[in-house]
Amino acid sequence: MLPGQMMNQPLTITSIMRFAEQVYGGGEIVSITADNPRHRYTYTDAFRRARLLANALKAAGVQQGDRVATLAWNDYRHFELYYAVPCSGAVCHTINPRLFPEQVEYIIKHADDKLIFVDPAFLPLLEALEHKLSSIQQVIVLTDACHMPQTPLKNVRDYESFIAHHSDSFNWPELDENTASSLCYTSGTTGHPKGVLYSHRSCVLHSYAAVMPDAMNISCHDVLMPIVPMFHVNAWSTPFATAMVGAKLVLPGSKMGDGEALQSLIELEKITISAGVPTVWLALLSYLRDSGKTIDSLQRVLVGGAACPLSIMEEFEHKHGVYTHHAWGMTETGPMGTFNSLKPGMDKLAKEQLDKIKLKQGRPVYGVDLRIVDEDGNTQPWDGESKGEVRIKGNWVCSAYYRHEGEASHDGDGYFRTGDVASMDPLGYLLITDRSKDVIKSGGEWISSIDLENAAVSHPAVAEAAVIGVPHPKWSERPLLIVVKAPETDLSKEEILAFLDGKVAKWWIPEDAVFVDAIPHTATGKISKKDLRIKFADYSSA
Amino acid sequence: MLPGQMMNQPLTITSIMRFAEQVYGGGEIVSITADNPRHRYTYTDAFRRARLLANALKAAGVQQGDRVATLAWNDYRHFELYYAVPCSGAVCHTINPRLFPEQVEYIIKHADDKLIFVDPAFLPLLEALEHKLSSIQQVIVLTDACHMPQTPLKNVRDYESFIAHHSDSFNWPELDENTASSLCYTSGTTGHPKGVLYSHRSCVLHSYAAVMPDAMNISCHDVLMPIVPMFHVNAWSTPFATAMVGAKLVLPGSKMGDGEALQSLIELEKITISAGVPTVWLALLSYLRDSGKTIDSLQRVLVGGAACPLSIMEEFEHKHGVYTHHAWGMTETGPMGTFNSLKPGMDKLAKEQLDKIKLKQGRPVYGVDLRIVDEDGNTQPWDGESKGEVRIKGNWVCSAYYRHEGEASHDGDGYFRTGDVASMDPLGYLLITDRSKDVIKSGGEWISSIDLENAAVSHPAVAEAAVIGVPHPKWSERPLLIVVKAPETDLSKEEILAFLDGKVAKWWIPEDAVFVDAIPHTATGKISKKDLRIKFADYSSA
Repeated sequence: MLPGQMMNQPLTITSIMRFAEQVYGGGEIVSITADNPRHRYTYTDAFRRARLLANALKAAGVQQGDRVATLAWNDYRHFELYYAVPCSGAVCHTINPRLFPEQVEYIIKHADDKLIFVDPAFLPLLEALEHKLSSIQQVIVLTDACHMPQTPLKNVRDYESFIAHHSDSFNWPELDENTASSLCYTSGTTGHPKGVLYSHRSCVLHSYAAVMPDAMNISCHDVLMPIVPMFHVNAWSTPFATAMVGAKLVLPGSKMGDGEALQSLIELEKITISAGVPTVWLALLSYLRDSGKTIDSLQRVLVGGAACPLSIMEEFEHKHGVYTHHAWGMTETGPMGTFNSLKPGMDKLAKEQLDKIKLKQGRPVYGVDLRIVDEDGNTQPWDGESKGEVRIKGNWVCSAYYRHEGEASHDGDGYFRTGDVASMDPLGYLLITDRSKDVIKSGGEWISSIDLENAAVSHPAVAEAAVIGVPHPKWSERPLLIVVKAPETDLSKEEILAFLDGKVAKWWIPEDAVFVDAIPHTATGKISKKDLRIKFADYSSA
Repeated sequence: MLPGQMMNQPLTITSIMRFAEQVYGGGEIVSITADNPRHRYTYTDAFRRARLLANALKAAGVQQGDRVATLAWNDYRHFELYYAVPCSGAVCHTINPRLFPEQVEYIIKHADDKLIFVDPAFLPLLEALEHKLSSIQQVIVLTDACHMPQTPLKNVRDYESFIAHHSDSFNWPELDENTASSLCYTSGTTGHPKGVLYSHRSCVLHSYAAVMPDAMNISCHDVLMPIVPMFHVNAWSTPFATAMVGAKLVLPGSKMGDGEALQSLIELEKITISAGVPTVWLALLSYLRDSGKTIDSLQRVLVGGAACPLSIMEEFEHKHGVYTHHAWGMTETGPMGTFNSLKPGMDKLAKEQLDKIKLKQGRPVYGVDLRIVDEDGNTQPWDGESKGEVRIKGNWVCSAYYRHEGEASHDGDGYFRTGDVASMDPLGYLLITDRSKDVIKSGGEWISSIDLENAAVSHPAVAEAAVIGVPHPKWSERPLLIVVKAPETDLSKEEILAFLDGKVAKWWIPEDAVFVDAIPHTATGKISKKDLRIKFADYSSA
């Protein structure tokens, strides 16, 4: 090989930080925290404090490669940790505080976290685990001395005291771009949570891809509010992507599901782009309907984590002039696997055709290599019909789980097996139809539980719906529809089943629907089909 | 170091090609060639033919690391070479056909090119050098058999015959991302041309940066026409950047300076973005004035290679609604060093302030690290006042010249010494004031020859102006203004010198101006100050 003669500067989070401080130092970061309803400073301030923090981490004995945990909402102190920890050469391990305590315990032990930074709200969770977390040497509460809560924990102090009195100059180490930067565990529905260990390179390349015009399209003129938590896949890389382009960043703290707080932030901070799961948008739209308030500055929302119902897209677009982008990915894929934006000419399509495209999960961006593989291992054509598991390669896709090398998570060609079932159309748009373990196999053919659920929830009297497969003597499996009725509505089994007619293939329509008061969810807010299958284990469709 | 556990997919031009073919296969490429006034095909077609070409190269004995030369305009066959050569592991060596024959001879010998692909128009240049180019085993003329010109050259054939009868499947090698991909020589004003050897990684990272919203901002909805030649710094990476995002690409062949052809392409192909040096825009604007024709689809033009006069920016904006982005870079810097787009709030500035910003060369994008260093080696503050040489680091900046390792082109900190003199303002905007060797040192202070030239050419009777330093007994040097009058105008020395009053510092104003019929230019179209200094060697300012 003849090597090129170009500089080889490592792609590190440090280089994003240095660049943003030099060229976009005046860019704003606005946060809601437990101790301040509207904290406001600049990238210059943030990175100065990141240097204080880096010195404090060093003084606390944090070495390169050590894991430093966070149990925290989206705010400026978490932002400082996002930079100071990896740029010191350590690993920023973001823990989901919504997990069950025993999962949090498992994760901290498995990651062997040395320090933990915790929001005051999550202190009780740690207190309950106190004697079980031997690796943790210090607990730092993300507040100042005045707001420091009482706690029986030992070796605990507030963040502001922790970083105070340190120098604001720090000699950031020159890191190899493949150095681990961040760690995030994904809680599967079976087995223990598994850790994805991001690298500086993967974070930088994901950010390059995220800001591209046909993806998140973030410029220095934008004001971005990630409502996706910073404990979930690096908040879709938004804390890095915004610094890379100098956009203003708004961090809503614990107010992620609070329609009133979100509306107020959008209006006052002139937010142009936001990102979150469908539940967040339901809360915001519901507040807007009730209050009659507006979100005039908001131009686009990015929706991932679950399929976005058309009703959300339409309400955003027609009432508020906000365009909704569907996206798809997971903790293991950085997360951006696909992003839905239109191709040239599509804006001229009839509404029905356009809706079909917008409901898909979108196209791969450059840097992602996707294929659809059927049960026999055959790569499927991109014909919009053929279904199979989504397999993915790319610079922001995990190559193995952290300390879990035995896991058969990749296929023989090195593609990560996502466990999602989908089709790809000739234009490169992905449509997720199921999780592979949730697929219902009826008479040798697949029925998509997601399609059935989407059809059912479009009925105004349905608050939530889930579909699972139940054994059937003739067809091997048939779908069972499980429905939570909307408050103060009435709905019969016959009505909802008749409603599905014409919306899905006739042979997909379940024979039965059952009504329940609530559908169980996982710690990350997804429908827990595992629990549903246990609950309906004795159900007979005969 | 704890390594992250993410996939490490090489950043190669091959990966751009594979991605574009899969997701944007239908994207169009339109060209003007010598044998076809309007050739039109898709990315799918282009990459299929790139595979034919790769097989043909292999059959011709091209090995990994070999240099394959081009002497060609911007068209689809050159595009195929841009991919097939580097993705085969060889090096696509683009030669500037405007260089002097002895420079072309030197470059081909120095690069040790094995094959050369040549436009029919440049065949005479090769014929004149025939017996001097021993490394060249085959000459391939970029046309088909019907249009093949007569030539005394041996081992010559047309491109279409060269690739015909080969398979359209090719197993692209898995390349290390640091493999050399492309080679471009820069003709300094002194000494032999020097080669910059780009890598796959540098081309990919430059493309990521180029498409960013605050840089070229290229989406799949755009139609881009690079008027900057493909023999010059990879046409500013546009052939890679457009494929990365699936934009339509329009290649104007030899019609780069032809206002009528450019207007027609813009109108018929609905071009939204174009890129070129100021001379190109003068030709286009002049044609538009004379013909009364319009360029309605065009939204933005990128201007680099030389400072863009305000008159061009204003005519574009006010008459045609086209926004002009200034950019700065050189062969050694990939080329994008800085790009001028506005920061938030700047659009509300008064016209005079805004013009001052727009005339600057712009801000660094993420991936570029710039500093200004004075003669004593001190890094200068970004205060908009302090001047010094621009030094640059980045993933698309050369680390050394090809086969020229002795050259002291980098400073002790590893920054490339650009030879450009500039200031940086507090907002990160670069303003080039001179080439370091063209700076005029008068009474111990620097006078910017570029500022004086810009002021002089804003006089309607000045067609072109150059300023050089001439010896002065008291001030050591003083500026001399050299002017070419516009056709059918009259202008006296006193008039033009008086005109400068108020436009530059009083002590900058030259004591003398001389009128000439023509100003000498280098092969890349820049004013040759070396030749002017020779011509005026005996000039006395006393």
